[in-house]
Amino acid sequence: MAGNSFGKIFKLTTFGESHGLAIGGIIDGCPSGLLIDFEAIEAEMQRRKPGQSNIVTQRKEEDKVKFLSGIFEGKTTGTPIGFTIDNIDPKSKDYSHLKNVYRPSHADFTYDKKYGIRDYRGGGRSSARETASRVVAGAIAKQLIAQVKINAFVSSVGEIFIDKPYQDLDFSKIESNNVRCPDEATAVKMENHIKEIRKQGDTVGGTITCVLKNVPIGLGEPVFDKLHADLGKAMLSINAVKGFEYGSGFCGAKMKGSEHNDIFNVDGSTKTNLSGGIQGGISNGMDIYFRVAFKPVATIMQKQQTIDKDGNRVEAQGKGRHDPCVVPRAVPIVEAMAALVLADFYLLQKVSKLSSNT
Amino acid sequence: MAGNSFGKIFKLTTFGESHGLAIGGIIDGCPSGLLIDFEAIEAEMQRRKPGQSNIVTQRKEEDKVKFLSGIFEGKTTGTPIGFTIDNIDPKSKDYSHLKNVYRPSHADFTYDKKYGIRDYRGGGRSSARETASRVVAGAIAKQLIAQVKINAFVSSVGEIFIDKPYQDLDFSKIESNNVRCPDEATAVKMENHIKEIRKQGDTVGGTITCVLKNVPIGLGEPVFDKLHADLGKAMLSINAVKGFEYGSGFCGAKMKGSEHNDIFNVDGSTKTNLSGGIQGGISNGMDIYFRVAFKPVATIMQKQQTIDKDGNRVEAQGKGRHDPCVVPRAVPIVEAMAALVLADFYLLQKVSKLSSNT
Amino acid sequence: MAGNSFGKIFKLTTFGESHGLAIGGIIDGCPSGLLIDFEAIEAEMQRRKPGQSNIVTQRKEEDKVKFLSGIFEGKTTGTPIGFTIDNIDPKSKDYSHLKNVYRPSHADFTYDKKYGIRDYRGGGRSSARETASRVVAGAIAKQLIAQVKINAFVSSVGEIFIDKPYQDLDFSKIESNNVRCPDEATAVKMENHIKEIRKQGDTVGGTITCVLKNVPIGLGEPVFDKLHADLGKAMLSINAVKGFEYGSGFCGAKMKGSEHNDIFNVDGSTKTNLSGGIQGGISNGMDIYFRVAFKPVATIMQKQQTIDKDGNRVEAQGKGRHDPCVVPRAVPIVEAMAALVLADFYLLQKVSKLSSNT
Amino acid sequence: MAGNSFGKIFKLTTFGESHGLAIGGIIDGCPSGLLIDFEAIEAEMQRRKPGQSNIVTQRKEEDKVKFLSGIFEGKTTGTPIGFTIDNIDPKSKDYSHLKNVYRPSHADFTYDKKYGIRDYRGGGRSSARETASRVVAGAIAKQLIAQVKINAFVSSVGEIFIDKPYQDLDFSKIESNNVRCPDEATAVKMENHIKEIRKQGDTVGGTITCVLKNVPIGLGEPVFDKLHADLGKAMLSINAVKGFEYGSGFCGAKMKGSEHNDIFNVDGSTKTNLSGGIQGGISNGMDIYFRVAFKPVATIMQKQQTIDKDGNRVEAQGKGRHDPCVVPRAVPIVEAMAALVLADFYLLQKVSKLSSNT
Repeated sequence: MAGNSFGKIFKLTTFGESHGLAIGGIIDGCPSGLLIDFEAIEAEMQRRKPGQSNIVTQRKEEDKVKFLSGIFEGKTTGTPIGFTIDNIDPKSKDYSHLKNVYRPSHADFTYDKKYGIRDYRGGGRSSARETASRVVAGAIAKQLIAQVKINAFVSSVGEIFIDKPYQDLDFSKIESNNVRCPDEATAVKMENHIKEIRKQGDTVGGTITCVLKNVPIGLGEPVFDKLHADLGKAMLSINAVKGFEYGSGFCGAKMKGSEHNDIFNVDGSTKTNLSGGIQGGISNGMDIYFRVAFKPVATIMQKQQTIDKDGNRVEAQGKGRHDPCVVPRAVPIVEAMAALVLADFYLLQKVSKLSSNT
Repeated sequence: MAGNSFGKIFKLTTFGESHGLAIGGIIDGCPSGLLIDFEAIEAEMQRRKPGQSNIVTQRKEEDKVKFLSGIFEGKTTGTPIGFTIDNIDPKSKDYSHLKNVYRPSHADFTYDKKYGIRDYRGGGRSSARETASRVVAGAIAKQLIAQVKINAFVSSVGEIFIDKPYQDLDFSKIESNNVRCPDEATAVKMENHIKEIRKQGDTVGGTITCVLKNVPIGLGEPVFDKLHADLGKAMLSINAVKGFEYGSGFCGAKMKGSEHNDIFNVDGSTKTNLSGGIQGGISNGMDIYFRVAFKPVATIMQKQQTIDKDGNRVEAQGKGRHDPCVVPRAVPIVEAMAALVLADFYLLQKVSKLSSNT
Repeated sequence: MAGNSFGKIFKLTTFGESHGLAIGGIIDGCPSGLLIDFEAIEAEMQRRKPGQSNIVTQRKEEDKVKFLSGIFEGKTTGTPIGFTIDNIDPKSKDYSHLKNVYRPSHADFTYDKKYGIRDYRGGGRSSARETASRVVAGAIAKQLIAQVKINAFVSSVGEIFIDKPYQDLDFSKIESNNVRCPDEATAVKMENHIKEIRKQGDTVGGTITCVLKNVPIGLGEPVFDKLHADLGKAMLSINAVKGFEYGSGFCGAKMKGSEHNDIFNVDGSTKTNLSGGIQGGISNGMDIYFRVAFKPVATIMQKQQTIDKDGNRVEAQGKGRHDPCVVPRAVPIVEAMAALVLADFYLLQKVSKLSSNT
Repeated sequence: MAGNSFGKIFKLTTFGESHGLAIGGIIDGCPSGLLIDFEAIEAEMQRRKPGQSNIVTQRKEEDKVKFLSGIFEGKTTGTPIGFTIDNIDPKSKDYSHLKNVYRPSHADFTYDKKYGIRDYRGGGRSSARETASRVVAGAIAKQLIAQVKINAFVSSVGEIFIDKPYQDLDFSKIESNNVRCPDEATAVKMENHIKEIRKQGDTVGGTITCVLKNVPIGLGEPVFDKLHADLGKAMLSINAVKGFEYGSGFCGAKMKGSEHNDIFNVDGSTKTNLSGGIQGGISNGMDIYFRVAFKPVATIMQKQQTIDKDGNRVEAQGKGRHDPCVVPRAVPIVEAMAALVLADFYLLQKVSKLSSNT
C-alpha cells in the first residue's frame, strides 16, 4: 500500500534512507531449493556501485550485501530472504545545508508536503541508493529464471544515439566500456560527451534499451497486469525515468496496420516483431525489447536559484560527488527490475492452467 | 493476482468477454456518501461507445450500465458497487471462422498458449470491449476527485501532429469534432486521414495527450508506486498502447540538467514544468501531463497470410465493423484510467501523515 | 482493502445487498481448463437456500446463479468468472419500519456509525444473503480440489450435542435430516428443540464441525497465513460466528505435552491427531477438523426494547420469516469457505518449491 | 502471498530463522509524524524475552532491536521502518541431532514436505522466536492507537482457571506475578502448577484473555475482513494457538436469542455485551474481549518415539532450555497482534466515509 513492495508472488519489500544505518529488504515468495550464486549477486552490485569508473560518482560505498535469513547451506528454503547493506560512507555533515532547502527538480518539496517531515540527508528515501536493494533481489530473480537472457545497454546519451537495430549489436561488448554501450564507436562519443558535461558542472540524460531473450510463452496476466504494463511500471519506478516504450513504441503510433502487423511463421514465431514479444499482454516467445528514458540528474555543480521551506529565495549548488549521467549505472537496475517482473509472472504462470496443476 | 483488479483502496475488478452474456465489474473501496451523477456516467459511456461517429466502428452496443448494489437513494453506501453491461449485439456467428485462426498481432496465439482454451468470439477477454467497465469506474472516480480536471485529447494520428504546447489549446474544443482533437485545423486533417485509411481497408495509430489540473500536492507512494509509475501502468494496460511518457518524456533524455531543472517560484510552484507535475513520484501541484502511444488496430480489411492452431497457412481478413483508428474512442478510456489512479492515491494519501489522521 | 475479497490466487470478490437488484461476485484466478459441474453448484445452492425445510426461514428465493463470463463450452478459460443471483422476493415494504431503528445485536448501529448511510432493507449488506455468493465460489473451489472430501455437519444446537467423536459418524447421513446432523437420534432431538424454540418466538445457537479428508500435505503459508489461521478467518467472517477451534482446540489448552503430542507412524502419519492435521501452519496429510460456534439469530419474534437513530426508546419485533436456528443452513457455507481456503493454498503451493516448478 | 506479511495499510513483513544471523522486519505504512517511545518498545520486548523469570525458558537472548530506517529525529517519516534483532545465543551445535529427526507435533515434518529443505536449527522459521518481530511492530502500533487500552492476561493454565468475569479483575496486577494472571490467588496456583509440570519434564497448555477498551466505533471491514475475523486470524497465526472465541464465544452457541441479544442504552452503548464489542464485523464502542487457546509446548524433557526423514524409528528428547508453559510469555504477543489489527483498521477507517475525506 505505502509503495515499498514490488511483485505479487516473488515479492520484494525494501527499506532504507541514503544516510541511515543501512538499507535492505525482504524477498518473500522465492521458491525453495534455488542454489544461490553469491558471486553473481556481488557482480551485479559492482555494476551498480558508485566509484566504478571515471564517469560516475566517486562516492564510496562498499555495497556489501549481508543475507540474514532464507538461505541455508547455499540454497533458498522458501522462507523470506532478509538482507541489509550498510551505509558506510554517509558523510552526514555534508547535508546540513540542505535541511531547509528545496533543491530544483528533486523530491525535497514533495516529501515535505506529503509527510511533513523528511530525512534530508542525501535525499533520504528518495535517493537512488535505494535501488541497490532492487539489484540484490533482481540478481536472485535472474537466477530463478536462468533460461532468460536479460541485456540492457545505454542506447543514447544526450543527442548521441546508437543508430543500429539491437539485432546488429554484440551484447558481449556492453561491459567493455564505462558507458555500457555495445557499439564501441558510439561508446567513445558518449564517454567523451559525459566528460565534457561534467566539466561544465552539468548533467545529461539518456536512454537504456533492454532486450529479454528466451522468455517463456504465456507470461503476463490480462487485463490490468499485462506483461508490458508491469514492465513499464517497474521501469518508471526507477529514479529519473520519464518514459517507457516497448516494441514499435512511439514510432508504432505513426504506422499503418498493414505495416505494423507481425506475420506468423508456421512455427508460431513472427517474421517481424513490432509487437515487441508481447501480444494481448502475454509473452509470445519472441524477443521482448523496450526503451527507457532517463532525465538528466537534477544535482548540478552550478548555482541555481531556489527556495527554502519558508519560501525565501536561496541558492543551491551541488557538492562533491554526483553522477554527470545516470544511465551507465542504471543499466543493472533496469535489468534487475525486468528480472523481478519476469520472475513474478513466471511463478504466477504456474497456476494459470489446470493441466500444469494436476 | 490474475490481473483483473486495479487499484489499492479504490479498487476495480472486472469480468467479461466480448460475446458473453455481459461484462461488468465491482468497485470496492469507494467511500460512502458520494452522490452519484448517473448522467455523467452515461455521458462517459457515450464517448467510448461504438457507432458514435463516422470514423469509428459501426458495431452497435447500447452500453447501458446496470448498477446492482452499493448505491442507495442516489448515494454510495461504502459497500461494493456491482455493475453489469449487457452485450446486446454479439452476432456470434461472425466469429466461427476465427475459431482456429491466429490473427496477426492479436492475442489469439498467446491466449491459446497461456490458457489452452479461449473464447474466440470477437476476441473474448482480449477485446477492447472490456474497457467499458473501466469507463464506468473511472466516471465514479472522477466524481470522487471532482476538484481535479482531467482532459485527454488526440495529439496525433499517423504522421499528423498538433504542433503546439498543450497550454495553447482550448480543451472545450475536444468534443467539438469526431477525432477529439482540440486544434480544429489539425482535427480536420486527422479526420480526412482516417477516412482515407479506412478506404484502403487499413488502420492507423496515434497518440493521446492527457492533462491533469488541480491535482492535490502529495499524491503518489514512493518508491515503487510512484504516481507516474502507476499512471504508466494504467495506460499501458489499455489495449494497443505501446508507450508512455510524462513531463519532458523521451525528449528529456536529450537534455542537460541546467536546462531541465524546474526553478521554484516563492510559492512552491515552478517556472517551468519539465517534471510534469511529479517529483520523486509525488505530485507537486503543477499540471501533470503525459502522452500515450497507440499502435494501429490489428484488424484490417485486407487479406493477410497467417496460421491456424495446427500451424497450417491460412488467410485472415477483417470483416465488417472495426475502428480504422483507435485513438478517438480511447480518449475517455485514458481519462478513466487516470481518474482511477488519482482517486486511489487520493484516498491513500489520507493515511500517510499523522496530523491528518488525528 | 474494503473487505469484499477473499483469497490470494483463487480470489472471490462479492457485492450485493439483501434487497438490491442482485447479489453476485467475481472469481478471479481460477485456472483454465476446469470442467464445471453446474448441477453440483446448483445442489450446493439448494442446501443453503431459504425455505428448504420446516425448520428454516420460509423466505422465498430461487437463488438461481447466472454465470456471465469466464466459462466457455463448459470449461473455465482462466478469465474472471462473473456471476449474479437475482433477488426475487425482496418485499421491500416490510422494512420501512426499520429505517431508523437499531435492532439489538444487529449491524444497524455499526453500519450507520461507520458509513453514515445504510441500505436498511433486510439488513442490506450485513444480511446473510451475501453468503450465497460464497457458496457459488465454494462449489467451484470444491471442483478444483476434487480429491479433498469436505464434510460439515451440525454438532450441537443449544445444549444438545453429538457425544461421539467424528470418526464414529456416518457422513452419508448428514443430508438425511433437516438439521444436517449425522447422528440420527441427536438430529431428532435437535429438530424438536428448534421447533420448540420457534414456537417461543425465540432463536437458538449451535455449532458446526467440519472435517477435511485427503488434503494434500504442504498447504499453508507460514508464518502469518498458517492454514488454520486462514480457515479461522474464513469461518469467523461468516455471519453470527463467535468462535473457532481446530484439532484439540480449547480442550488442548488443558492438556499436558506428553498427552497432546501426536506420535508418528513410520509412514509419516500420526497415531493420534490432536494437531488437527496441521503442524506449523502446514497440512500434514491427516484429517483436518475444526469446530465453529454460531450465536443465536438476533431477530426474534418477541418484543424487545431498543433505540432509534436519534436515541429514542422504541420497540422492535421480528416479522415474518426468519431462521429459528442458523446452523442447518450454515453447513454448506462452512464447507464453501473451507473449500475457498484450500483451493487458494492448493494453487499457492505450486510455487513454493523449485523442484515442482521446473 | 508467501505468508510473511500482516496487515493492509499498516503492514508488517518479517524474516528470520531462530539460528540465523538475525531476525527482523519492515513496517510499511506507518504514518509520518509519530513520536516513537523507544523505551516502551524495549519494555514490550522484555515481557516477551526468554529468561525473564523462573517459569520460562532460560535461553539467553538480548532481544535488542536495531532500527535501520523510517525514523528521523525520533519521529516516523512515513518511509518503511526496517529493523533487526540479532540472534546472540544460537548454540547451533545443539541442533545437529535434529537434522534428520521429525519431532512429534513440531513443524519438522511439514516444512520438509512443503519445501524439501529446512533450517533445522532450533526450529528455524517455525520457532516462536519469530514473534519477537511481531512485538516490535505491535509496540509501534500501540503508540499509533494510544487511546486504545490493550490488556491481555493468562486466564487459565491447564485446568486452573480464573473464575471471575474480566470486569472484576485489576489489570494493574497482570505484571505483578510471573504468570501474568491478574487474580493473585489463581496466579500462585498457576505458578506452582507450572513448576510441578516442569519437574515432570512435561509442558502444559493454557488460555489468554485479551480486553480492548476504548476502541473507536466503526473499525472492521465487512464482509470478509470483519474485525473479529482478522483478530481471529492474528491470534491463530501465533505458534501453538488452537482456538479463538470472542464475546460470548462457544458459550453463545448454547444460548437463546432472547438471552443473547444486547439491549441498547439510549446513548448507543449496550446493557450487556455478549456481542464482544463487535456487531456485523464492526466495532461498536463497547469493550472487545476474546480468548485464545494455546496447546502445551511440544518440546518435552521426556523420551518420545518418533521417526527420522527416512522413516526409521528414533527417539527424541528435548534438551536444555524450553518453556514448560507458553502462555506467560505469549501475553505480549497476543497484545502485539491485537494492536497490529486495530492500527490497520484504524487507518483504513479514515477512507470509508466521504465526510471524513473532504
